[in-house]
Amino acid sequence: MKVNDKHYRTVWMEGSNVKLIEQNLLPFEFEIYTADDYIDTCAAIQSMQVRGAGAIGATAGYAMAQAFLESLDTGATKFWNEVEQAKKTIESTRPTAQNLFYATNRVFDAGKQENNIEDSVRVAVEQAQKIADEDAAACKKIGEYGAELIKLGFRIGTHCNAGWLAFVDNGSALSPIYVAHRNGIELTVYADETRPRSQGARLTAWELYNENVNHFIVPDNAMPYLMSRGEIDMFIVGSDRIAANGDVANKIGTMGKAIAAKRFGVPFYVAAPTSTIDLNCSSGSKIPIEQRSQDEVLYQTGIDEDGFIQKILVCSPGSKAINPAFDITPAELITGIITEKGIVKPNVDEIKNLFS
Amino acid sequence: MKVNDKHYRTVWMEGSNVKLIEQNLLPFEFEIYTADDYIDTCAAIQSMQVRGAGAIGATAGYAMAQAFLESLDTGATKFWNEVEQAKKTIESTRPTAQNLFYATNRVFDAGKQENNIEDSVRVAVEQAQKIADEDAAACKKIGEYGAELIKLGFRIGTHCNAGWLAFVDNGSALSPIYVAHRNGIELTVYADETRPRSQGARLTAWELYNENVNHFIVPDNAMPYLMSRGEIDMFIVGSDRIAANGDVANKIGTMGKAIAAKRFGVPFYVAAPTSTIDLNCSSGSKIPIEQRSQDEVLYQTGIDEDGFIQKILVCSPGSKAINPAFDITPAELITGIITEKGIVKPNVDEIKNLFS
Repeated sequence: MKVNDKHYRTVWMEGSNVKLIEQNLLPFEFEIYTADDYIDTCAAIQSMQVRGAGAIGATAGYAMAQAFLESLDTGATKFWNEVEQAKKTIESTRPTAQNLFYATNRVFDAGKQENNIEDSVRVAVEQAQKIADEDAAACKKIGEYGAELIKLGFRIGTHCNAGWLAFVDNGSALSPIYVAHRNGIELTVYADETRPRSQGARLTAWELYNENVNHFIVPDNAMPYLMSRGEIDMFIVGSDRIAANGDVANKIGTMGKAIAAKRFGVPFYVAAPTSTIDLNCSSGSKIPIEQRSQDEVLYQTGIDEDGFIQKILVCSPGSKAINPAFDITPAELITGIITEKGIVKPNVDEIKNLFS
Repeated sequence: MKVNDKHYRTVWMEGSNVKLIEQNLLPFEFEIYTADDYIDTCAAIQSMQVRGAGAIGATAGYAMAQAFLESLDTGATKFWNEVEQAKKTIESTRPTAQNLFYATNRVFDAGKQENNIEDSVRVAVEQAQKIADEDAAACKKIGEYGAELIKLGFRIGTHCNAGWLAFVDNGSALSPIYVAHRNGIELTVYADETRPRSQGARLTAWELYNENVNHFIVPDNAMPYLMSRGEIDMFIVGSDRIAANGDVANKIGTMGKAIAAKRFGVPFYVAAPTSTIDLNCSSGSKIPIEQRSQDEVLYQTGIDEDGFIQKILVCSPGSKAINPAFDITPAELITGIITEKGIVKPNVDEIKNLFS
C-alpha cells in the first residue's frame, strides 16, 4: 500500500521486532508501532492495533518467530515447553480468526522438524516471513480474479475493512476493486460504517481515499435501503474463517447484509485466501464467536475541532451493551468465494478441490 | 413520563409558547426548550429537538395554533393567507411524518369552520390541545393491547425510539413493554443503537433506565445475529407513516431487521396510533424519504470524561456519507399493527376497518 507515496506493508519484522501500522489511531494519525517481544505482539493483536484476517495471521506468525527467538535463552531442555506455552498465548488472542491458527501451526511445525534449536529458530523466522509474503501474493491474485466480476459503472457494497490494512498488502474484498480501478474501470464503493468499531467508515474509507476510489460512507442501517432501490450492483466482503461447507464467519453485521442481498438479488461475494478456509470445521455453527468489551459500543473515539483525539460516551449512561464481534453467514446466501486459486461456489466439493 | 419523580409530557403549550424536552441534549442533559413562535417551533422539529411520530404531530399541531395566534395581528383580510403560508412552512419540516400532516390539517380545518378569526384562533388552539391529548390516550391503549402479546421472560427487540419521547406520552412500541413491566411480567429489551443518530442507544436506553426495565444496547449489526441464535422472542417498532396496504415507513434500518426477523421466524410488530395511517397513500413506494445531512454520520456527540458535551469526527476525513432517514418495510414482513383500536393484520381491508 502507498501512504504519502511511500510503500508500506501492514506488518513486518525487523530483527526480533514486529513492526505494524497502529490501526487504532487511523484514520486520524499514521504511526508505526514496534512490538519488541511476543507478549507485546499478542497485546497488539488483542487490542486490535493490528486486525483483519491476513494481518492477524502474519502477525501471529511473526509472534511465533519472536517466541522461538526468545526461548533460545532458556536452553534446550526448556525450549519446547516455552515455545508451546507461547503458542497457546498467541492463539488465545482472537479465537475466531482462522489465519491466526494457520500461521501459529505452520511456524511451529516448521521449527519442530529441525534437529537442534538454533536451526528451529532460523526455520521458524523464515516460515513466518514466508507466510507474510504468501499472504500479499495471494491477495494480489484475488484482486485479479475478482476484478473480472466488476463491470463499468458498478456500485459495490462492502462491510468492515478487508483491504490493505486487513492483510499484509493488497487486501481481499478491496483487492478486486483496486485492480479494476487501476485498469480504468469507473466504479463507486459504498462502504458501510461497521459499528461498533467503524472499520468501514474509518479504515476502508481511508484506504479508498488514499487510492482515489470514488466512495461513500453508508450507515449500516442504510445498506438494505440502497439494495431495495437497486443502487448496489454487487457486494464483496472478507472473512475471518470459512468452514468446509462454505459458511463464512466475518465481522458482525455481514449476515444481515447477506440476507438483504439475497432478498433483493444482489450478488454477494466473499473474498479470502485459502489460508482462511478451515477444512477441519464442518460448518459455521462450530466456529467460536468472540465477545468483546461493551466499551467498544458505549464509547467512540474521533477528533475534535482542534484535531485532538477524544474518547466520548455516546450511549445513555447506566445502560449496558452487548458486543459480539462476528456472525456466521450461511453458504446459501453467498454467490461465490474469490480465492487466489480462482472463484468457487460455497460448497464442500468446490472448496475441497481448492486443496487438491 | 416520570423524570426525577416529576411527571412530564414530551411537548405542551403554555400561552403562546410551545414547551418541549430538548431531545438533542438527551441522555446527557435534561432541559426544557421554549419555542415562542411557530417559526421557532418549526426549527425545533427540523433540528430534531423534538422527534418521533406522535411528538412531531402534536408539535406541528401546536405550531399551527401558534400561527393562528400570530396571524391575528395581520387583520382579517390577510389572516388566512398568513395561516396557509405557515401551514406550508410547518409541513416542509419533516416530509415523511404522517402525523405532522394529520395535525396541521386537523387544526387548519377546525379553524376554517368558524365565522370570525377570533373564534378560529380559539378553536385552533383547542384542536391542537385535543390532538396532543388524543395522542397520549391512544398510546396508553396501544400499551394495553400490545401487552397481551408479551409473555413472561420475553426478550424483545426494538429499533430507534418509539417511547415516551416519540409521542406526547407513553409511546407506541415501548408502551406495551411499560404496561407489561408494570404488571410484573419479567422481560428484557434489546434496544438497537440506531445509527446514525443513535436514538436507540440514547433515548430508548435512557427511557428504559428511567423505568427500571432490564435492557441492553445492541449494535445495529448484531441484531440479526441475536435473532439467528433464537435470542429475540418478538420485535416491536414504531412508524412514521403507514400506507393503506400496510407498508410501513420507519427509521432507516427497520426494513433490514424485518427481513432478518422473517428469516428467523421472529414475530415483527409495528405499534402506531391510527393517526399514523395515511389512507390516501396506496403503498410504501409513494412515501417520500427524507435525506438528511451527512454530518449526522460523520460526527458524533457525547460526553467526555469531565462530563462536557463534545462533538467529534468519527469517520475518515475527506470521505462523504449518505444519510437517508427512513426506509419502507413491506407489509408482508409485518406480523401485525398494534393500534389504539386493536391489533390488525397489515392489509387493506383490516386497515380500512379501523376507520369505519
